[in-house]
Amino acid sequence: MDRDHILLTPGPLTTTLRTKLAMLRDWGSWDADFNAVTARVRASLLKIIHAESSHVVVPLQGSGTFSVEAAVATVVPRDGHVLVLDNGAYCKRAAKLTSMMGRKCTVLAFDDAEQVSPPALAAKLKEDTSITHVLMIHCETGAGVLNPLPLVAEVCASHGKGLIVDAMSSFGALPIDARETRFDALIAASGKCLEGVPGMGFVFLRKAILDKCAGQSQSLAMDLHDQYVYMEKTGQWRFTPPTHVVVALAEAIAQFEAEGGQPARLARYTDNYRTLIDGMGRLGFMPFLDPAVQAPIIVTFHAPGDPRYEFKAFYAAAKAHGFILYPGKLTQVETFRVGCIGAIGRNEMEQAVHAVELALQDLGIESGTPHI
Amino acid sequence: MDRDHILLTPGPLTTTLRTKLAMLRDWGSWDADFNAVTARVRASLLKIIHAESSHVVVPLQGSGTFSVEAAVATVVPRDGHVLVLDNGAYCKRAAKLTSMMGRKCTVLAFDDAEQVSPPALAAKLKEDTSITHVLMIHCETGAGVLNPLPLVAEVCASHGKGLIVDAMSSFGALPIDARETRFDALIAASGKCLEGVPGMGFVFLRKAILDKCAGQSQSLAMDLHDQYVYMEKTGQWRFTPPTHVVVALAEAIAQFEAEGGQPARLARYTDNYRTLIDGMGRLGFMPFLDPAVQAPIIVTFHAPGDPRYEFKAFYAAAKAHGFILYPGKLTQVETFRVGCIGAIGRNEMEQAVHAVELALQDLGIESGTPHI
Ligand SMILES: Cc1ncc(COP(=O)(O)O)c(C=O)c1O
Ligand SMILES: Cc1ncc(COP(=O)(O)O)c(C=O)c1O
Repeated sequence: MDRDHILLTPGPLTTTLRTKLAMLRDWGSWDADFNAVTARVRASLLKIIHAESSHVVVPLQGSGTFSVEAAVATVVPRDGHVLVLDNGAYCKRAAKLTSMMGRKCTVLAFDDAEQVSPPALAAKLKEDTSITHVLMIHCETGAGVLNPLPLVAEVCASHGKGLIVDAMSSFGALPIDARETRFDALIAASGKCLEGVPGMGFVFLRKAILDKCAGQSQSLAMDLHDQYVYMEKTGQWRFTPPTHVVVALAEAIAQFEAEGGQPARLARYTDNYRTLIDGMGRLGFMPFLDPAVQAPIIVTFHAPGDPRYEFKAFYAAAKAHGFILYPGKLTQVETFRVGCIGAIGRNEMEQAVHAVELALQDLGIESGTPHI
Repeated sequence: MDRDHILLTPGPLTTTLRTKLAMLRDWGSWDADFNAVTARVRASLLKIIHAESSHVVVPLQGSGTFSVEAAVATVVPRDGHVLVLDNGAYCKRAAKLTSMMGRKCTVLAFDDAEQVSPPALAAKLKEDTSITHVLMIHCETGAGVLNPLPLVAEVCASHGKGLIVDAMSSFGALPIDARETRFDALIAASGKCLEGVPGMGFVFLRKAILDKCAGQSQSLAMDLHDQYVYMEKTGQWRFTPPTHVVVALAEAIAQFEAEGGQPARLARYTDNYRTLIDGMGRLGFMPFLDPAVQAPIIVTFHAPGDPRYEFKAFYAAAKAHGFILYPGKLTQVETFRVGCIGAIGRNEMEQAVHAVELALQDLGIESGTPHI
């Protein structure tokens, strides 16, 4: 039966039919009607984190990583020095792209299972005063850790350092308030908690640093300052926008607002998370993280200890029951991940747990209990 | 009446309903079903230009410019020297992104209304032997000129220089044969003559140079070698693919093949072009280019000489009659452009001419005849 699977992945994720239906139209990218959609999306994005007076938001074509790279290229001077707070795979990728583009980069390493530490950051900034910018991931999707953004931002502000926040998998779901939390750049994308389809990212840039950003990027395509200036002047994107992705995002944001915005989305995802954790717990599964540092976005579970377990077969069995799981991203421990985000609610999470139960049965595995 | 307009633009363009309907589904980007779509698209793309044995094709997120930038970054060593054959706006952009990323770049300038010249290229390569790569645009969408790809490729091959071809607006419509025409990289995108939706590009890389490309890019996101190696190993994209754009492209390619492939597409676009030129000629309009150098992709027309003409008003009037035109991209002469590409045929072109006639009437303009 060729029925759609439910995606329990951290993006692309399951979107509403209404969001997808918005793509059944072709738009001229030069046309005023399309420019109005872009403008509406940008205005809505600013409101979500109360950044109307402090920041501008610049959309960018490509996946989320393109926007992370663009943010670093645009915000960090060529002779800048970036400190990456590393507690997972996406931190490592951010460090890599920073070094590759020729910016000096230092990594402050933390455990994958723990939050990054503001006191350790403060100590590092004292020790190495050549650091100009700090880069952190709000929700490290690798393991699912929620990092302490407001505290990190305070340390950066008090040391006079720029802060770049990758809020890819938290934006729209976890609270971020630009009136209280100071950052130079904050990055997210269409296909995550706003529940649009993938294909574009967007970066909030602090107005106070905007002018200094001119000419810093060594990449034309990723120069957010240039994209910003052109967009302000013409209402258009510099290069062909992914028109269908943009209109789908506009439609997704309209539903986000109708649902009650960020607090409502967080409430739904938190309920998804609890339903998942409780149900999986009944099957014997154990989450990898301490609940105190776990974001209600994506949960890493230890693999079952049963020798019959093998991720590929488990994945296939869960898929046969209608659900798409996600592989683990940890190098030391055998895990898999289940996302709590997307246009899904308690029903889908209950069914997901049931599908996992059936998948275990299919593989002859008695319980999800790990060997640890 | 909120009816869809017909886009006479060089991408995004009018796509079929079937292509858009493919987007009504969410796909897991890690899943085998989606990997199969990516593999099918890549195999089809190779066939279109007979590059199965000589090249690989690497898809990339973002607009076409991202793929041009990625091709230069991946193919040209950091101490390489690129000669850009410049007869228009997209050539100038390619030169700019090449310089910005730190590759040495020289521009060989030609008139906007003329083809680039293979003998002039040969002379330049003799004069400056430090040049390592030549970059040309196959169809310069700025004015609409078709450049002589096979002849340029011959000059490059005989001088032992690498060739990078931006075939953005020609790929799928104009013949390209990789068995006869040697190039190191050739770039196109989803939302042009293949009639997909915008959001991804793709680059053909010559197998013989592939290994040398490792580590050349200073951008992680745009490192086509890294994208290639990862994709070969896993079947997946390195970073979240624009899943809906990819499946729409797969569906668009299926229709492309059913229509008869590149020869059929060229025949339809040529018919569109003739219908347009004839009809506009009857209204007094004059094309900017000599027909001998005109590609049947997009036509630049001189603006009418009537003092009541003003592009914005003309555009709005044509739009009110159902058609989206495109502004000119020339700096010296007042022009506008009309695309011949997309899921449109003779009916639409006849109606487009009629819409232009009505638009002129609305503005009180007697004829399209220019002042020149
Ligand atoms: C925290 C974080 N950063 C960056 C990315 C990269 O985004 P993309 O895969 O769209 O390039 C992701 C993707 O899930 C993410 O969760
Ligand atoms: C020849 C050529 N090169 C490059 C581009 C840039 O593509 P994009 O606007 O998708 O970045 C275009 C777009 O029309 C083009 O026609």
